[in-house]
Parts: sequence; structure tokens; C-alpha cells
Amino acid sequence: MKFATFLPAQSRQPSLGVETPSGDFLDLTAAAAVLGPVIPGSMAQLIRGGAAAIQAVAEALASPRVNGLLQARDSLTFLPPIRTGKNVFCVGRNYREHIIEGNRANGRPENQFPEAIEFFTKPATALVGHQGAVLRHEAITNSLDYEVELAIVIGKGGANIREEDALQHVFGYTVVNDITARDLQKRHGQWFKGKGLDTSCPVGPVITHHSAIADPNQLELSLTVNGEQRQRHNTNDMIFSVQRIIAELSIGMTLEPGDIISTGTPQGVGFAMTPPACLQAGDVVRATVQGIGTLENRIVGG
Amino acid sequence: MKFATFLPAQSRQPSLGVETPSGDFLDLTAAAAVLGPVIPGSMAQLIRGGAAAIQAVAEALASPRVNGLLQARDSLTFLPPIRTGKNVFCVGRNYREHIIEGNRANGRPENQFPEAIEFFTKPATALVGHQGAVLRHEAITNSLDYEVELAIVIGKGGANIREEDALQHVFGYTVVNDITARDLQKRHGQWFKGKGLDTSCPVGPVITHHSAIADPNQLELSLTVNGEQRQRHNTNDMIFSVQRIIAELSIGMTLEPGDIISTGTPQGVGFAMTPPACLQAGDVVRATVQGIGTLENRIVGG
Repeated sequence: MKFATFLPAQSRQPSLGVETPSGDFLDLTAAAAVLGPVIPGSMAQLIRGGAAAIQAVAEALASPRVNGLLQARDSLTFLPPIRTGKNVFCVGRNYREHIIEGNRANGRPENQFPEAIEFFTKPATALVGHQGAVLRHEAITNSLDYEVELAIVIGKGGANIREEDALQHVFGYTVVNDITARDLQKRHGQWFKGKGLDTSCPVGPVITHHSAIADPNQLELSLTVNGEQRQRHNTNDMIFSVQRIIAELSIGMTLEPGDIISTGTPQGVGFAMTPPACLQAGDVVRATVQGIGTLENRIVGG
Repeated sequence: MKFATFLPAQSRQPSLGVETPSGDFLDLTAAAAVLGPVIPGSMAQLIRGGAAAIQAVAEALASPRVNGLLQARDSLTFLPPIRTGKNVFCVGRNYREHIIEGNRANGRPENQFPEAIEFFTKPATALVGHQGAVLRHEAITNSLDYEVELAIVIGKGGANIREEDALQHVFGYTVVNDITARDLQKRHGQWFKGKGLDTSCPVGPVITHHSAIADPNQLELSLTVNGEQRQRHNTNDMIFSVQRIIAELSIGMTLEPGDIISTGTPQGVGFAMTPPACLQAGDVVRATVQGIGTLENRIVGG
């Protein structure tokens, strides 16, 4: 199952929806009004509801009583699938080839890999949904860059999660485009400032339930700018697997339902191109992860 | 005025309180039930209520109808004064003498100062109130350290705030103890992991309204461990002033009411002592900032 949070046409109230075979969405928030509160009305309720909530969604999809609650995909305004009470967790430098391209661009030895995971965060003010506008921030950065990433959505919380148990804590997976102002990232030492600008965290369009992803460490991912392919790789190049990331992040730090953990990007980022390329107003960026979908965003001046 | 969030004796419902001349607190949440919703019932309401909310608190303090709503300070369980939908913003290496001690301890040139502010964050799961327990995390760190810091609480949100306007965006100030696992901070490259452990962000006991702080860049601050003084300095040693921090953090990034920004720590941290000292179970750490108060926390095994 694939879940999205969106504004239905002519509505200002967010709905939770589940994708149907046609690619349209059943409005579960509306279905809950018909079928009762056993149906989760928001992504937070769905995630906290566990297997019972998934079962209720399956029954809603099969119910004739929800006829008329289908929303055409093209009519929707997609929102970030989930908002939590904390920043999005992110992983830096996790793909072998991306680390090598970064080392080359920065004049470091090519094969200098991190031994522990480099975690940083992006604030809630950075979140933007599928088809949302991403600000170019031209007054403050000369090097706005993209990064397609597989992102984990936590289902069951916990601390000190063991690698062998880690996938039991996953609700599902989504796509993050870790928009980065390279000059600010470098100038401020710590990465938060260059990674935390408004609209710098497109996420979505959907969260795919873990049951539909056989192995998160074997997924194709790619990114295009105005149709030109810039990144194309597989999560099997990650130095730190999904399981390892959950285990290492949760050491001494409690993960909570709905937490988003973005897992790093493969090679092909703009700053490492010759000559370096950066995003410009008008560019359309499409970030795709196998089994989840394509997150599309337009860069706008401002 | 000084405001706290606490559990009154025998209550599980958090109250907002304002300190009275005796050092006890008027329970404003209870007062709102008597005097009506003009009285802010939570720190979030108070902060968003602006000058009108402060005026209502002043009237509540003067009202005979709130007799009986005073809470003895010693009877209270202090909570983090405010929780927002994002991480606590933090500033690294901001005090001249602390940077020098860190450079010495790490074998860097003594006078190598940052040219831009190093921002990082601590997650909501790290928050703990005055007198709350701080975990020693002995299984995962050999070097748990303290850092007394002045913290800004944002009142009016905004992006691209100019330095000359910055203080108009401040609701008040509080104390943060930026508990840090030095070995994890170093091992993970980015500081989030070493700074983000559960209970690693004691904050409080109160937020002092900005009107009671003449100049946030002229405040004594100090820290003791089991009564032994470890840090004692003044915010006038900060390289980046409160105004500069707000301006630089808000470039391209929207600050929101209730956001906490911790401003860095002066010299005297444990890892830079000879020999290095670290916190142990049983230690009592008291972090004090002039005009705000003392944030006390005990280190506990676990």
C-alpha cells in the first residue's frame, strides 16, 4: 500500500489517502466519517495504529460504502506525508561513489570513508510536498544542489534497536530530496545551516508500506533536472544499510513513530560535476526511488 | 516576569506559572479557569499572545480572585518550559576562551576562530526539565560533558531578520545545559549524534521575559559539578552576539514562536581539563545564568 497526505480539490483540510490500482486515491479521512474511527484519519493515526490500522484500510478499500470517496490523482495538492514534533534526521556521505566524488571535489584522498554515520537534521520549516515550490534562495546561495534519497519512516519507536530487529521498527519508506546550499554547508562548518533553508526538504509523494518493499537495500534511485539524468544508482551502494542506520541512530536516542530518517545520496550531485552545476529558477527536479514513486518539484525565484 | 511549566503537586496536567516575589508560582492555567481565557494557559499561548498576554498575566497577579492558586516552588515538578514542533537550535564554539581551550585539546592552532556560526540541533527527545534526571549513558560514552548556555526563546517569528531588529523577535531567555558525549561528537563527524542523546538537553527552570533582561550580551553565567566551580564567564565573550545569531540563523530559514536557540558555552568544559574530567552517576550539575536562575540536574546511571 502507498499512502499520501493531500488537500482534496476545493478543500483546505488535509486528508490521508491510500493509492488504488488506478493511481487515484481513496480518501481515508472521508471514509472514516462513513465507516467509523476504526479507519485512520491521518498519517499519524495510521502509523500508530499498527497492523490493525492497515487491516482497516484494506477493508475500506474493499467496501462498497466508500464509492464516491475516490480522489483523482491530478486533482490533489500533495503535502508532506507526515509531520512530527522534531526535525528530519539525515545521513551524510553514505554512498561509496558519492563520497569519492566529494573527496575529489574537495581535494581529499579519494578513498577516505566515514567510519561512523554522519547524522544531521533538517527543520520542519524545510518540509514541502510533491509538486511544491522549492525556493532558489538566490540572495543567499550561489550553489543550490539536489540529492535524491531513500527515507525511512519509523513505525514502532524505541532506543538501542538492534540491527537484526531494525526492520520491525519501520512503517514504510518515502523519497526525500535533500536540497543543499553547498556554499553555506561549507562556510558554517556544521551542515545544518546549508541543509536547513525553507523548502529545502521536499518529501513524498507517498509513503510505501514496508510490506511492499522486499529489501530497502536493493532499490534503484535516480534524479533528473529538466529531464536530464543526473543521478542513477542503487541503495546497495550504501556503506551503512537501512538496518545499520536505525541501529546507530537509536543508540541512546529514542526514535518515535513517524520519525523520518533520510539515508544519504548517491553520486551525481551538481557541485561535483565539471564544471559544477547548480539549480536555477525554473528547473524541474524529479527524484525517483523504486517502489515508492517520483517526487517532483519546481525551483522558483525567491 | 519569569515563567515556568510544571506539574503542580498531585497533578499530572502541566500548568503554566509565573513567579511571584516570594519565589513561588501563580498557576496561570488554574487562573484561566477562574478569570477566563484572556489568561494564557500554556507557554505556547503566552508566547503567541504577545503584549496582551503579558498584560493579562500582570492583571492576574494583582487580582484577589487568584488567592489559593499559588504553588510553593518546592512542591513543583519542573518540565521543559516550552516544547515546539522542531529540534532545539544550538550554536557551537562561540566563546573566545572556549574555542582556545578546544583548539589546544585538539592540537589545532590556538587562535583559529569560526568565521560563520556553527549551527546544529538537539531533538525534542533530549529535553528534560529543572531537577530532571540526566542519563549517564555509560554503555555508549566515556566522556559525558556539560556546557552552560544562555538560550533565546523566539516570540515573533520571521525569516531574514536584521540584526538591528533581532531583539524585537525575542520572547525571553532561559538556561540550557548542552550535555555532550565528546567521543560520539568526534567519532560521527557531524555533532548531532554526540549532542542528541536522550536527556541531553536540560532546559529551564524558567523563561525570563525579555523586558527583565537589559542586555543579553552582558550576563554572567557559571556551572558547578557537586559544588565545584567549572565554568564562570560572561556572555560578553561571545564572538557572535544574540542579535547576530538570530539574524544569521534566520537567513532563508523561518523562525517560529517558541523556538529555542542555545548560544554556546564558555571555557571550563570537562574534556579540556587536565586531566579531562567527565560526568559520573551521582554528580549534581548546576548551570546558572544571571537574570534567569539555576538549572539543576542529577546524573543517573543508565
